[in-house]
Amino acid sequence: MTPPVVSFVGKSGSGKTTFLIKVVSELVKRGYNIGTIKHDAHSFEIDHKGKDSYRHKKAGATVVALSSPEKFAVIKDVKEEWRPERLISLFLNDCDCVITEGYKTGPFPKIEVLRKAHSTTPVSVDDDRLLAFVTDLDMKSFGRPQFKLNDFKKVASFIEKEIIEGHKDKGVSLVVDGKVVVMKPFIENLLRDGVTGMIRTLKGCSKAKDIEIRIRRS
Amino acid sequence: MTPPVVSFVGKSGSGKTTFLIKVVSELVKRGYNIGTIKHDAHSFEIDHKGKDSYRHKKAGATVVALSSPEKFAVIKDVKEEWRPERLISLFLNDCDCVITEGYKTGPFPKIEVLRKAHSTTPVSVDDDRLLAFVTDLDMKSFGRPQFKLNDFKKVASFIEKEIIEGHKDKGVSLVVDGKVVVMKPFIENLLRDGVTGMIRTLKGCSKAKDIEIRIRRS
Repeated sequence: MTPPVVSFVGKSGSGKTTFLIKVVSELVKRGYNIGTIKHDAHSFEIDHKGKDSYRHKKAGATVVALSSPEKFAVIKDVKEEWRPERLISLFLNDCDCVITEGYKTGPFPKIEVLRKAHSTTPVSVDDDRLLAFVTDLDMKSFGRPQFKLNDFKKVASFIEKEIIEGHKDKGVSLVVDGKVVVMKPFIENLLRDGVTGMIRTLKGCSKAKDIEIRIRRS
Repeated sequence: MTPPVVSFVGKSGSGKTTFLIKVVSELVKRGYNIGTIKHDAHSFEIDHKGKDSYRHKKAGATVVALSSPEKFAVIKDVKEEWRPERLISLFLNDCDCVITEGYKTGPFPKIEVLRKAHSTTPVSVDDDRLLAFVTDLDMKSFGRPQFKLNDFKKVASFIEKEIIEGHKDKGVSLVVDGKVVVMKPFIENLLRDGVTGMIRTLKGCSKAKDIEIRIRRS
């Protein structure tokens, strides 16, 4: 529902992607179900020219979905960027851990990748959610643990310990008018138990565990 | 929330995609916000080899999302195929009309594309949700309206009249344990008003219009 999240941040070209995919592979090897989000401040291309989905999109559809028995894909135009919390609530809620690439001003704990050959100035030292550096520089003066550029196994262990273990899944997420609403535990329990109670009175829903409701009022 | 849906069906190679994209273009030109879903009974490739999202997926992430200010994309592995109603409820709920390619046994009204050079046997004549044919054959004996293979403007008008106009947006969708739950109007109103009432008492939510709740109970 609300899986633990960690963001790999750093300037473009710092080697974030290369390091991140090694950490993802390692965590997957250790049995975790990992989801990723790549943040792109500009835009991206994903679809293959000439494929049916590309042709649907080209014809002017604002959302194109592809669905098969083993996976689905969705490409959706938005008027305003969706916050990562909303993407996580809808699509990544069943992951053990979500790793983002980017979102350096986002609300998640961060690990910064910094390569001497590329830049010597970190981007997130003023952020108190900065947990650690992955770098070939000496960043000890910033008072965070630091890992070497090939320390992906150690970083996987660090994420296991600091991010995944000890994360409490609250089991409820609420998005109102596109924004994630953070609730106090009492309110959250009330909402969860109230809504579950209502739904379980419906025919065929007496054992409802996973509930998704969308309401749009005009 | 629950937009009107129509499915273009027909054998593989019938010309469904080509006809569908013309209809989508025409409806977009007329000012409609159109979403599409392509159903693939097997699997599909969407991502570009070597791109970061591809590398994330290749590393073993079960969900990969890409997000930018103008669009997002999600590729998600599933254990069991997601029903189109669930995809619509989550991603296509703000469309004026959803057009699917495929889902010939699905729950939506259908238009079958049938080309003489390719096949003379329709796939969906036993389906009482079959609305019309697009064909160069004489299918009048089946008692449905028929359009020519270049009649995409007429088919767009047919969809406007038969599918879009007169569709009542109920404003509520409920998915329980992966299945869309159809409610009687009384229950639906009760759920909508009950949940909206609860949410509007929360700080900053007094004007909540668009509400998404996910609950997962272990």
